[in-house]
Amino acid sequence: MTSPLQEFLKQRHAAFKTDDSGAVADYIPELTKANPAHFGASLATMDGHVYEIGDSAVPFTIQSISKAFVFALALERLGQERVEKAIGVEPSGEAFNSIRLTTDNRPFNPMVNAGAIACSGLIHHAEGNGAFELIHETLSRFAGRKLDIDDDVYLSERATGDRNRAIAWLLHNYDVLKCDVDGVLDVYFRQCAVLVTARDLAVMAATLANGGRNPVTGEQIISPYVVSRTLSVMTSSGMYDYAGEWIYRVGIPAKSGVGGGIIASLPAQLGLGTFSPKLDDHGNSVRGLKMCEALSSHYGLHVLSRADDIRTCIIADYNATGLSSRRNRMPSELKLLEERSGEIRIVELVGALSFATMDFVSRRLAEGDRASFILIDLRRTPSVSDAAALLADKVIEGLTQRGAMLVFSGFDKSSPLWPSMAAWMERSPNVRHFGLLEDAIEWAEDQVIFRYGGFEYHESTSHLNEQSLLSGLSEDELEEIADLCHARDYKTGERIIHAGDSAASLFFLQRGVVSIKLQSGARLASLLPGMVFGEMALIDDKRTADVWADTPVQCLELSVDAYRRYRSTHPHCAERMMANLAKLLAGRLVLANTKVELLSAY
Amino acid sequence: MTSPLQEFLKQRHAAFKTDDSGAVADYIPELTKANPAHFGASLATMDGHVYEIGDSAVPFTIQSISKAFVFALALERLGQERVEKAIGVEPSGEAFNSIRLTTDNRPFNPMVNAGAIACSGLIHHAEGNGAFELIHETLSRFAGRKLDIDDDVYLSERATGDRNRAIAWLLHNYDVLKCDVDGVLDVYFRQCAVLVTARDLAVMAATLANGGRNPVTGEQIISPYVVSRTLSVMTSSGMYDYAGEWIYRVGIPAKSGVGGGIIASLPAQLGLGTFSPKLDDHGNSVRGLKMCEALSSHYGLHVLSRADDIRTCIIADYNATGLSSRRNRMPSELKLLEERSGEIRIVELVGALSFATMDFVSRRLAEGDRASFILIDLRRTPSVSDAAALLADKVIEGLTQRGAMLVFSGFDKSSPLWPSMAAWMERSPNVRHFGLLEDAIEWAEDQVIFRYGGFEYHESTSHLNEQSLLSGLSEDELEEIADLCHARDYKTGERIIHAGDSAASLFFLQRGVVSIKLQSGARLASLLPGMVFGEMALIDDKRTADVWADTPVQCLELSVDAYRRYRSTHPHCAERMMANLAKLLAGRLVLANTKVELLSAY
Repeated sequence: MTSPLQEFLKQRHAAFKTDDSGAVADYIPELTKANPAHFGASLATMDGHVYEIGDSAVPFTIQSISKAFVFALALERLGQERVEKAIGVEPSGEAFNSIRLTTDNRPFNPMVNAGAIACSGLIHHAEGNGAFELIHETLSRFAGRKLDIDDDVYLSERATGDRNRAIAWLLHNYDVLKCDVDGVLDVYFRQCAVLVTARDLAVMAATLANGGRNPVTGEQIISPYVVSRTLSVMTSSGMYDYAGEWIYRVGIPAKSGVGGGIIASLPAQLGLGTFSPKLDDHGNSVRGLKMCEALSSHYGLHVLSRADDIRTCIIADYNATGLSSRRNRMPSELKLLEERSGEIRIVELVGALSFATMDFVSRRLAEGDRASFILIDLRRTPSVSDAAALLADKVIEGLTQRGAMLVFSGFDKSSPLWPSMAAWMERSPNVRHFGLLEDAIEWAEDQVIFRYGGFEYHESTSHLNEQSLLSGLSEDELEEIADLCHARDYKTGERIIHAGDSAASLFFLQRGVVSIKLQSGARLASLLPGMVFGEMALIDDKRTADVWADTPVQCLELSVDAYRRYRSTHPHCAERMMANLAKLLAGRLVLANTKVELLSAY
Repeated sequence: MTSPLQEFLKQRHAAFKTDDSGAVADYIPELTKANPAHFGASLATMDGHVYEIGDSAVPFTIQSISKAFVFALALERLGQERVEKAIGVEPSGEAFNSIRLTTDNRPFNPMVNAGAIACSGLIHHAEGNGAFELIHETLSRFAGRKLDIDDDVYLSERATGDRNRAIAWLLHNYDVLKCDVDGVLDVYFRQCAVLVTARDLAVMAATLANGGRNPVTGEQIISPYVVSRTLSVMTSSGMYDYAGEWIYRVGIPAKSGVGGGIIASLPAQLGLGTFSPKLDDHGNSVRGLKMCEALSSHYGLHVLSRADDIRTCIIADYNATGLSSRRNRMPSELKLLEERSGEIRIVELVGALSFATMDFVSRRLAEGDRASFILIDLRRTPSVSDAAALLADKVIEGLTQRGAMLVFSGFDKSSPLWPSMAAWMERSPNVRHFGLLEDAIEWAEDQVIFRYGGFEYHESTSHLNEQSLLSGLSEDELEEIADLCHARDYKTGERIIHAGDSAASLFFLQRGVVSIKLQSGARLASLLPGMVFGEMALIDDKRTADVWADTPVQCLELSVDAYRRYRSTHPHCAERMMANLAKLLAGRLVLANTKVELLSAY
């Protein structure tokens, strides 16, 4: 199956290729050498997939498109105060190479030449001779590969760029440029001569669309604040004197360059890069513009068109009833947990957490505000906005103040929630974190059992009357079973059962703790004295999971052969054991079905 | 627990209330009567929750804020071509009451008085005397309640609005207004005098943020296209000569009115309404602006700041292995389904489907491109963008072309996907829809069994050797069991087992089909001849689900009492039956655990 988007790009590429209007830029002699037939486009997605069509691998100079990224770099390195003091953010209403400044003698915005030169000047001022190297390296990180430079174009621009030279000296006159004017111009001319392809531009645009993280390399290059401000100036001033029309008709922040490139960046959706050297009267690539417009109009894409349903962010919201933990509980503990099921509330979230979704979550949490333990699982929430983190902080404050224990699971230290969470854990015993939800549930259940006095931790039980598999057997019958068993001892860390082995026995645990684990190491359950493991040997001839000794372990092993001999002489007892096994399985089935229902209900 | 957002509004309200700067509007005599101390704010969420603080219930006139909604109404009713021909979308660079027009003699945009009067004119032209009534009704639907009108303000505006009168005549001169000028002005003056509260404005703004659907009433008022274009003109021209700064610093489309109101609308996140009569030099409410700025800066909210992870849209992607259906299968059918498990692929989606998520889904579907049956479950995808619907259409085309069967489940006819889906179902036998995923799986499994010749539909089986519960018993033993049973007949639609009854027997199905159902009517399983139901009576004394005859049914009923008598004389057979029951349950447990894992893995 061909991808629908690849097909779309192919069709539009073929259609727009026939448009021969416009003219190759000629204000720099070197640019006139471009091949007017070239036409390439590329679309990069938020998971790093890159679609390409036509001449998407042909290099050309980035020119004015560099302005957006150098502005971003300046904001990121020098901070908003310094940059915003030097350069405005209002559309100028004039051509990109206008020498006019605002009434307080600043460049109107960073997308006109004056503002871009001021930006390069700020970086030159801070970095000195390393300024261009930093810019070059940053552009390369946006593209995800080391970009080359077209020295001929650079020298051509330097030789003929007198208008920019005039702008630079005017900025120097008003103290906007505080340093060596020729040095700044050299940086500016060289940054415009960096070579990119349509594919590079797509990845660069996608990095802006992806909150500043390059979706191909995974590298975070600039902060979300800088992204939103860079896209803001692209929106208000990126497409020359066409801002109102552009946002109205296309609605995707964009920037073009006289080299024939255009980037368009739709937050959380896509990055588009196009290349075709023939420009319209405004200096925008004719075919590139058409591609932007077609993408927007065909798919109804627009930065102000967005519809989510915030309610899908909660995928499950339920009380633990003593059935959710992987630790097998004693019957009395299970009874207590069932009686106290309202004490533990589990909320599983899914998707990006934004202002709106976290507000929704905060209200849902406040609604059923009675549980003592509130477990919030975040393993399906890969991104958390600053707003969501701030709201979460207040939710923690509110819930801990009323004495609730808040237990988070399923996120790591790279999460934006981590710093605030770590601070909470340091100052409040009421906030905890577990890697796995199952561990969090187990811990919370232990706390409930401990709190309400139901803990029956049998350090050791040698008597088989605790075994639910043997429930209903008489003392004599239990003794006969015990006689058939062999006592076994295992050291901490020893594997008692190997998955894949043939299943020839079952074990009654008398002392210590064992864990049932998958071969991946994931724990399915942990068992305490009085419980049975390996019991599926009675109906299945193969082991399906490992069992490990977590502590020194004592148990009684009953071989299937011995059971079979016993069965022939004690058929009633055997029938009873099988009925007990069926009951054990029926209980686990109820548990599993409950979980399926919980996860499917939302 | 106090909600974090309520707390935020309270704190900021208290802080900004002390700001006494600005002046009440005085260009209309009636407006000077406003109480300068008033200050209210309200925030409405996408699920229809409304936060309020201060004087949020005090009515005031909507004034220029009406421009955004009347523009939306014009676009919605008259179509983009007619409206966009009459009115531009570029910022004017002049005051809101400027009489200057564009070079082709159109108003610059719908947010200045000239553009707004032109809008009212378009509606007046189309609706005649019903124009104001339509506007009034539309504003009321945005607010979710019938709004009043301040006749004194209306009469005051009409008596003093000579500048607007001049603008209207100029528009008439250039044929932008084609009808009765006084009639249009009357509509315009009355629309400005509609009374709203900060709460009303919040809901109106939230309706724009929510893709045109009022989140409180649930009513769809305008289309997503109209929403995005309305927010576009608010962004480029909504806050007077401050567009670049506003999008850069606040980044939330907004519109203010001289009555002291402001709306701010952040797509998919929130709607804010504020009211405080004192205005700054630009004519914007001082405290209202502060509230907008505080909300944006504190929470880092900005329309161009957005980060989702598109990969969370697929919550499960797996092959059916014959274990997923609720129909109990014959062993030979199960074997066949297991062998052919690659034939059925199930993809469960979650969250809003956008351009980016549907593209991701399309690539995921193309990756494992071998299944004959592709089941796509959409019950957790409450919204689908136009782009997603377009891409989905291409995906269907591609998959059906290669011969795959596409089966959708979990959405209804109100979904934006429905029209295209219905068209597909009409022209292709390869596209189907089921309400429930479980029904889709069952149908697909039936198809696989049918296709590969494994269908063993026993219309009737009177012999018990097919029964897995009795597996391993000799012919004589089976005959003895049969002798203990009573033959039963049930009519279509008859209830055989009642949930809650005591469980005193089990049934061997010989002819017909029965369904196991919850009391809600949800079907858990359907059974065919050769299968057992009510078998949990062997270990549980209560019925947990209903069993209904879907067709005329014949079965053998074995009472638990009879089983118990039989057990005492045939303990080996009883032990065998219990072991078979344990195996049945173990199989179901594997199924349930597999499903839990699938739903937890993403």
